[in-house]
Amino acid sequence: MLDALKEELWKLHLMLPKEGLVTWTSGNISARDPESGYVVIKPSGVMYDELRPEDHVVLDLEGTVVEGHLKPSSDTASHLYIYRHRPDINGIVHTHSPYATAFAALGRSIPVYLTAIADEFGGPIPCAGFALIGGEEIGRQVVEHIGQSPAVLLKNHGVFTVGKTARAALKAAVMVEDVARTVHLALQLGQPQEIDPEAVAKLHHRYTHVYGQ
Amino acid sequence: MLDALKEELWKLHLMLPKEGLVTWTSGNISARDPESGYVVIKPSGVMYDELRPEDHVVLDLEGTVVEGHLKPSSDTASHLYIYRHRPDINGIVHTHSPYATAFAALGRSIPVYLTAIADEFGGPIPCAGFALIGGEEIGRQVVEHIGQSPAVLLKNHGVFTVGKTARAALKAAVMVEDVARTVHLALQLGQPQEIDPEAVAKLHHRYTHVYGQ
Amino acid sequence: MLDALKEELWKLHLMLPKEGLVTWTSGNISARDPESGYVVIKPSGVMYDELRPEDHVVLDLEGTVVEGHLKPSSDTASHLYIYRHRPDINGIVHTHSPYATAFAALGRSIPVYLTAIADEFGGPIPCAGFALIGGEEIGRQVVEHIGQSPAVLLKNHGVFTVGKTARAALKAAVMVEDVARTVHLALQLGQPQEIDPEAVAKLHHRYTHVYGQ
Amino acid sequence: MLDALKEELWKLHLMLPKEGLVTWTSGNISARDPESGYVVIKPSGVMYDELRPEDHVVLDLEGTVVEGHLKPSSDTASHLYIYRHRPDINGIVHTHSPYATAFAALGRSIPVYLTAIADEFGGPIPCAGFALIGGEEIGRQVVEHIGQSPAVLLKNHGVFTVGKTARAALKAAVMVEDVARTVHLALQLGQPQEIDPEAVAKLHHRYTHVYGQ
Repeated sequence: MLDALKEELWKLHLMLPKEGLVTWTSGNISARDPESGYVVIKPSGVMYDELRPEDHVVLDLEGTVVEGHLKPSSDTASHLYIYRHRPDINGIVHTHSPYATAFAALGRSIPVYLTAIADEFGGPIPCAGFALIGGEEIGRQVVEHIGQSPAVLLKNHGVFTVGKTARAALKAAVMVEDVARTVHLALQLGQPQEIDPEAVAKLHHRYTHVYGQ
Repeated sequence: MLDALKEELWKLHLMLPKEGLVTWTSGNISARDPESGYVVIKPSGVMYDELRPEDHVVLDLEGTVVEGHLKPSSDTASHLYIYRHRPDINGIVHTHSPYATAFAALGRSIPVYLTAIADEFGGPIPCAGFALIGGEEIGRQVVEHIGQSPAVLLKNHGVFTVGKTARAALKAAVMVEDVARTVHLALQLGQPQEIDPEAVAKLHHRYTHVYGQ
Repeated sequence: MLDALKEELWKLHLMLPKEGLVTWTSGNISARDPESGYVVIKPSGVMYDELRPEDHVVLDLEGTVVEGHLKPSSDTASHLYIYRHRPDINGIVHTHSPYATAFAALGRSIPVYLTAIADEFGGPIPCAGFALIGGEEIGRQVVEHIGQSPAVLLKNHGVFTVGKTARAALKAAVMVEDVARTVHLALQLGQPQEIDPEAVAKLHHRYTHVYGQ
Repeated sequence: MLDALKEELWKLHLMLPKEGLVTWTSGNISARDPESGYVVIKPSGVMYDELRPEDHVVLDLEGTVVEGHLKPSSDTASHLYIYRHRPDINGIVHTHSPYATAFAALGRSIPVYLTAIADEFGGPIPCAGFALIGGEEIGRQVVEHIGQSPAVLLKNHGVFTVGKTARAALKAAVMVEDVARTVHLALQLGQPQEIDPEAVAKLHHRYTHVYGQ
């Protein structure tokens, strides 16, 4: 069931190591099928180059496995919590990408020092508090702190990104690492000036309404 | 029309991700055809691995689309502004390459700490002021600050490079990131000494008159 | 003899350069065959892309070469010392991976600043003292300082990781570099807070008992 | 003429971009044929992926081109100077590899903070003074400062490495960047302790007399 979505998720999962966002089996992506409301997610602890489309697990929003021969990601409960509280979101990505996680290690958000941050995120990239892994606590932290940003950092842990599709959430995961790296490099040179909020709003509006095809 | 130039621009565009200068759809290259005066540029928000030669957009210098089935880059007005004010330039590259953009985040130019900077740039790599994206403002900043350098940084934004050909501008984009990285690494160790202007002039003259075939 | 183990070790050796953990001929992996008690190890000073399965050297635990046409790794005596003192370990990896070795250069352990460290290592990654290469001294340092961690740093030198299998030791070598990099990046931004020991214990228990298939 | 040496040099040249030591056309390798005394060197300003074995230039030690349809590297006079003053050397590599060049930018040598430095270099990696490009000045700086090390840094410029063969010089170029990176990362964390000279001598003796096949 949901074979097309599994195939898409498989392709997106392969981009995580290619983009340098994950190591060994870390990280995961899920997608919600808008029609059935079911969620498809990575199986737990599987190497990316051994993952196959049919290995993805299908669950309902309460966590009952609808289909799948493998155990789902240990972040599943948090993904489901986010989907239940954010009907606008159909895709979630979790990584420990190194530069973004360096900010997360300190519980530090990333200010709008770059036009690329204004474009993609529309404001600072927030940082949520620490939460244990395995239950809904991470999901609660994400929902509480992410606001309208497509990305949130998790203290001492890593990154969650969200989007209308899993592909949009993956784009946010790629971009958060990219801007975190540039901001990290800039902070080693001195203190950048934040872009003023009015300019941030204009940049974000143009990027989300005019940019692209 | 201008099929050979589109083909060349397509090849140069593929080098941007290969050289680590761009992320997702960011960055763009344009070229001016010296005969017709028309400008060929990347379409807006297209992934590099999906870009085809025929997707490039052809415009005249006033911004009228002459040929193309896609919307041109949202930096088009600034590219055209540069071409109108710099008849010596037929190629422009724009990136957010991380090390150069770290200097740009701070509005900081890159002094001549390396023979490679003297060779390629002939002096410090200047930094222009902040400008919004979408209109000619970035083009105006570039023209005002770039001088005889093939590269200029844009405050809180990224890099523009120019050249007699798009290939020359791409070379400058690769080299500005390379020297920005080495200078960044050096600045973490201490304060390098600038090469004296007389030596800079000699190095640049040799590189542009003797080096190569 | 032990052809399957040599084949596996060869595949694991090829992952060392692919994962960026070694340079030129540096680094090595060994595995103990649980049945015979023999140890298979990389030959000394061989390039990874020239290494073949049949080039691996087989020794008994006292260092007598049982099979092999090449000289064994110059770290062999230390690998054997570890196997003799840790019957629970059947795989050992040694690298000079850059971020982990930066901590090692300072004789500095890596605290639990990240959930990924709690997950994989269950506590801080310890650092052993300086030892000369060629004899058992490194093995003694490893056994004395590694405790229940799968990884230990060696002052002014590099990293040793251990596991129930060579593959598990390789995973630890990949993860120690990954978390060393993120912690290094975090320390450039400020001082992260350690995860409290109770949470570390819970995370490690979940990762080693629930995570995976 | 010297077709085998050209073929080998071509293969070594291709390793420079693969190992991340050069950018665009920067860097070069030369080799001296021990029988004829002729030197084979990279042509000036040629892209690595366009270089062919037959493009290499053959010169005698005084700089007369013996064979070749292209202009030799603009560092040729310095390579020849080194060969004339160091009959023990038959291979030279020049790069601007980023971490080593960061130390060079500051005119700073690299102390023996790692066993890998003791192994390969047998002591600190020295830094020579600034010299203009094109004549013998760089060669003079190299000969004056390199001593028995296979590598020397050039102030505000880059790296020269030497060896009994071009392959040995390439290994030194790879290793100098590797250790420069790890030392750079260590210096961001604090002040490493140098390995004491007696241990350095023992490590270097073992590496050059026992290590390898």
